[in-house]
Amino acid sequence: MSIALVLLAAGKGTRMESDLPKVLHRIAGAPMLVHAMAAGAALSPERVVVVAGHGADAVSSAAQSYAPETEVVIQSEQLGTAHAVAQARDTLADFDGDVIVLYGDTPFIGEETLEDMARARARHDVVVLGFEAADPGRYGRLVMDGERLERIVEWKDASDEERAITLCNSGVLAADAATLFRLIEAVGNDNAAGEYYLPDVVALAVSEGLSATAVACDEAETQGVNSRAELARAEAAFQARGRAELMANGVTLQAPDTVFLSFDTAIGRDAEIEPNVVFGPGVTVESGARIRAFSHLEGCHVSRGAVVGPYARLRPGAELSENVHVGNFVEVKNAQLGAGVKANHLSYIGDAEIGEGTNIGAGTITCNYDGVLKHRTTIGERAFIGSNTMLVAPVTIGDGALTASGSVVTDNVPANALAIARAPQVTKPDRARRLFEVLKARKAAQTKGS
Amino acid sequence: MSIALVLLAAGKGTRMESDLPKVLHRIAGAPMLVHAMAAGAALSPERVVVVAGHGADAVSSAAQSYAPETEVVIQSEQLGTAHAVAQARDTLADFDGDVIVLYGDTPFIGEETLEDMARARARHDVVVLGFEAADPGRYGRLVMDGERLERIVEWKDASDEERAITLCNSGVLAADAATLFRLIEAVGNDNAAGEYYLPDVVALAVSEGLSATAVACDEAETQGVNSRAELARAEAAFQARGRAELMANGVTLQAPDTVFLSFDTAIGRDAEIEPNVVFGPGVTVESGARIRAFSHLEGCHVSRGAVVGPYARLRPGAELSENVHVGNFVEVKNAQLGAGVKANHLSYIGDAEIGEGTNIGAGTITCNYDGVLKHRTTIGERAFIGSNTMLVAPVTIGDGALTASGSVVTDNVPANALAIARAPQVTKPDRARRLFEVLKARKAAQTKGS
Amino acid sequence: MSIALVLLAAGKGTRMESDLPKVLHRIAGAPMLVHAMAAGAALSPERVVVVAGHGADAVSSAAQSYAPETEVVIQSEQLGTAHAVAQARDTLADFDGDVIVLYGDTPFIGEETLEDMARARARHDVVVLGFEAADPGRYGRLVMDGERLERIVEWKDASDEERAITLCNSGVLAADAATLFRLIEAVGNDNAAGEYYLPDVVALAVSEGLSATAVACDEAETQGVNSRAELARAEAAFQARGRAELMANGVTLQAPDTVFLSFDTAIGRDAEIEPNVVFGPGVTVESGARIRAFSHLEGCHVSRGAVVGPYARLRPGAELSENVHVGNFVEVKNAQLGAGVKANHLSYIGDAEIGEGTNIGAGTITCNYDGVLKHRTTIGERAFIGSNTMLVAPVTIGDGALTASGSVVTDNVPANALAIARAPQVTKPDRARRLFEVLKARKAAQTKGS
Repeated sequence: MSIALVLLAAGKGTRMESDLPKVLHRIAGAPMLVHAMAAGAALSPERVVVVAGHGADAVSSAAQSYAPETEVVIQSEQLGTAHAVAQARDTLADFDGDVIVLYGDTPFIGEETLEDMARARARHDVVVLGFEAADPGRYGRLVMDGERLERIVEWKDASDEERAITLCNSGVLAADAATLFRLIEAVGNDNAAGEYYLPDVVALAVSEGLSATAVACDEAETQGVNSRAELARAEAAFQARGRAELMANGVTLQAPDTVFLSFDTAIGRDAEIEPNVVFGPGVTVESGARIRAFSHLEGCHVSRGAVVGPYARLRPGAELSENVHVGNFVEVKNAQLGAGVKANHLSYIGDAEIGEGTNIGAGTITCNYDGVLKHRTTIGERAFIGSNTMLVAPVTIGDGALTASGSVVTDNVPANALAIARAPQVTKPDRARRLFEVLKARKAAQTKGS
Repeated sequence: MSIALVLLAAGKGTRMESDLPKVLHRIAGAPMLVHAMAAGAALSPERVVVVAGHGADAVSSAAQSYAPETEVVIQSEQLGTAHAVAQARDTLADFDGDVIVLYGDTPFIGEETLEDMARARARHDVVVLGFEAADPGRYGRLVMDGERLERIVEWKDASDEERAITLCNSGVLAADAATLFRLIEAVGNDNAAGEYYLPDVVALAVSEGLSATAVACDEAETQGVNSRAELARAEAAFQARGRAELMANGVTLQAPDTVFLSFDTAIGRDAEIEPNVVFGPGVTVESGARIRAFSHLEGCHVSRGAVVGPYARLRPGAELSENVHVGNFVEVKNAQLGAGVKANHLSYIGDAEIGEGTNIGAGTITCNYDGVLKHRTTIGERAFIGSNTMLVAPVTIGDGALTASGSVVTDNVPANALAIARAPQVTKPDRARRLFEVLKARKAAQTKGS
Repeated sequence: MSIALVLLAAGKGTRMESDLPKVLHRIAGAPMLVHAMAAGAALSPERVVVVAGHGADAVSSAAQSYAPETEVVIQSEQLGTAHAVAQARDTLADFDGDVIVLYGDTPFIGEETLEDMARARARHDVVVLGFEAADPGRYGRLVMDGERLERIVEWKDASDEERAITLCNSGVLAADAATLFRLIEAVGNDNAAGEYYLPDVVALAVSEGLSATAVACDEAETQGVNSRAELARAEAAFQARGRAELMANGVTLQAPDTVFLSFDTAIGRDAEIEPNVVFGPGVTVESGARIRAFSHLEGCHVSRGAVVGPYARLRPGAELSENVHVGNFVEVKNAQLGAGVKANHLSYIGDAEIGEGTNIGAGTITCNYDGVLKHRTTIGERAFIGSNTMLVAPVTIGDGALTASGSVVTDNVPANALAIARAPQVTKPDRARRLFEVLKARKAAQTKGS
């Protein structure tokens, strides 16, 4: 059976106190909406429709940059979840299969849970996702009769017996497209808020003699996000899961709570991550690499045996080959470092390619920007870049070449050559003493004058 | 009714294991005493008297630097809380109003709680602050008869029935000045410790036919600090409240537990604070600014659209206009950066003024200190400071000027001019190879010799 | 009575998912095995025998680098704990005293607990270490009759009454060497796993009429480590204890959870440690020093009144005298800094000695490595090293000398002299404007061409 996902993402999220649409707030570096879409992607849906409203342009752009084939429909007024789903009807008019309704602010529904729902659809017309609530509070209750879902009862309408039920309604729902859109048309808004509620389709289905059922998932999966405090809790939950998974796979985390992962961080077995490391999106770290404290990595690759940090910043396009060392207060951006390259202190390496075994001295800077254009620096193998060398790009340093400390290198340096660009040292006896005397006299005069 | 605060701040705090007087230990960057004074300030007191003892000079100086009009009296011997309050009698001899007694090691009493006490004084002669204890343990119990406080009973003197009471004595107390000092004179020290206890004034008041009452507050407000472990817990409680408040106001905190605030940190809606950021005192961050991981800010202002860090250090006097970028391993101190200024890598900007749209290259240093005096650097708009430029202050760089990478700039540079101060590059073929051969031979000889 | 420790350290630790032998995984910077050995060292054992197996070379080397006199025996096949202990028999053939069996993956047994066991041995032939389990689960139960240990019963063989016992078997055991090895010979492997279990010696001892007893310790002491998640929990437990101990001794930790200690970190009273500080092995910090946020220290000494950080990295051999300031983005390695030295910004100080009162300007680098050899830099007292000075070692700067900003200093500078090595500034009017015009035109052409 082919599947279409409908993701509801139109809400403003007033309690977020934000100009950013709620579903675009991020968890582990990705918008909540993208987390929800990624879970749904496990079903290989034929169609994906996002229902946008507040900040529709931004929502649309985020959805399509994650999955370009995503279709976006607009819900101009927020008149309830059934009304939101109805906005997808025309777009899916030619679609003949199942629709699963997901929520852009409920990012953690598991792939297995969605597969359970898809399987349950084979035996029932409507499938609702429920969860066993530790504290059911005012959630709607799922009234079951064996495998059949009899009805969903709102807390305020529930009898004491019904309130004792702990299986609650998550809002996630699956049905055949034709059935779903037909039932939705019959949903009314005769309630306090005057909204059209999606769960009402269950009662309509049952009254037609259709069969409904519920699939249960872990309560954590259905946790929605309505405030920044809830967002922070969702982030913490995601991080805790990610760290536990890394450790189970053999990654050493000395202080797991201080390591921040992105949705796509990949780290190999026996890699070692010290305290206080931040992984932005797009990082892979191979087995046995060591990421030292206070390092910050984004969009980069770290090979086996490499040592990064402490205080190293790897930015997008940093490619570290085996046994590379990038040390403290060093920034690497859009640069390929060959095996065994060392750049251990106070350097900026941007838009560069560095050959195997080259040593980059402390304070080295690739001057890659002239104020208008960016240029590349190319350094050969086994070269030795002296401390505080300015490499004014575009420039090429040959294999085995040497630059003298403090040189500004503007011309290419051939292999095995020495480049030096500095003034000779002049030493003036007793001059320091006399200078400081003058300065102190001046300070004394200033102090007196003030 | 005019109010005088009497703050007890004479104790040594033996369990702190510190040479610093207990009340000067800090929470969120401010001494505990100042937190207590700040809470009291909500009542707009006419007089504030601090009773100091251990480390009286330091206590006095901290109190007066927070509020210059604070009066300090000395309690030479610590003979109990009633004795401490008695030290304020002469100073307040001419004061005709209410006295509220607070404690310098109880920093979290809420403003509303104090206002409740002030209101209760309108109806009763003595007002005691109580709290509902989750675990009353050995706290003194407040025995109430309706709204009237009958007596305070010490745990060791309490009947089983009294021990079942959960409303406990915080020690905070309010009374008319004349009444208070008169009652205190009658307090005895016939107890195991031989101390004069302030709560004894309640029994004396009631025996005189005066009326006493209690106001109840949250237990967290009355939490005192007696050890560094308790100090750390108080700090954690303060931070948790501060972070929750920021999030409720629409600030994004990806990992709230890793963001450290000061007592006065102010952050605007939709500002984004990444993990591991430390705010020292005196920081304001406008809406929509972004503070990246591992940044450290003190005494600075960050405007809308600015991006700070990762690894940026903003020190007192750093003023970042809109859309400024201050990046990794960059320190800014006492400097105004105009709109759109970029200083992204490995720089020190101190005692400077930089015009709109100027780009500060990697490794730039304002040489503001000559060993005796500090000098200012002034840079115009849309200038381009090349990498590793030393700006030897006092120096002025004009609008649209350019400094060549690696230059030491000692003279002013006019608008649109280029300043260059560097030696020409000399390249010596094959010299690096021969040099390394010599060095390796020397190393081999050394190794052999050792 | 002389004591021999036998440490079982042969296991692979499959659940660690690691190529590193389990007992070499680190807690607070030291291998678990070393923690176990350090606890045992409190008994001043005459002999220490480590039973190694998986990764025996690495285990042996770690054990001997901690205590060179450690003897290592090999257990080629892992056939159970009794079999492991049996491997030490030949080595201890001439040993006449008590053997205590410890585990390399149980790092937290307390010294007092081991002393309790040694004392109990005076009255009983076999002493087993038990612990009161909060949740006894499937641990073996110690069935006591007064002070006598009747037997150890495995959970699966236990009656309901026995399962109600909460005193559980830790596996740690002490006995006279001759007795222990004799009993071990009689242990069989008639069990599901076909292994020889050490606790079986208790039944054999009792059946011979020998007396056995149990000593109880805190459950936390017997916590073993079998996965990286458990390792992280053990690390967290160690850190929590260490932080609490520091605070009890009068060290200020603003945010204790963010300070990471090593097994040997020593910090004096009234020292102040800000959030996010990492202490590697070998650090001592004197009273009243201040370690600011985001600092990283290893193998160094910080004296009274010194201020380190924020963002300072002290590496092995960094010796900071009183009142030294090492500031942001500064790395110090193998260098002695005299009283009052200041190195506050963006510097690398390696293999150096710096006299009292000297000021190191921003961007200073000791160029200590020529690509083959390392050399030393020596700076006198009250010298002033200008910003961005390259000190090309070996080089000596005299007392009171001055180096001009941006100089590359290759020759020694006498006391009170000024060294300057820089090209004069040339300023070319209007050149910047014309240059940018050219660059912009080039960019426009590129954009058009692409």
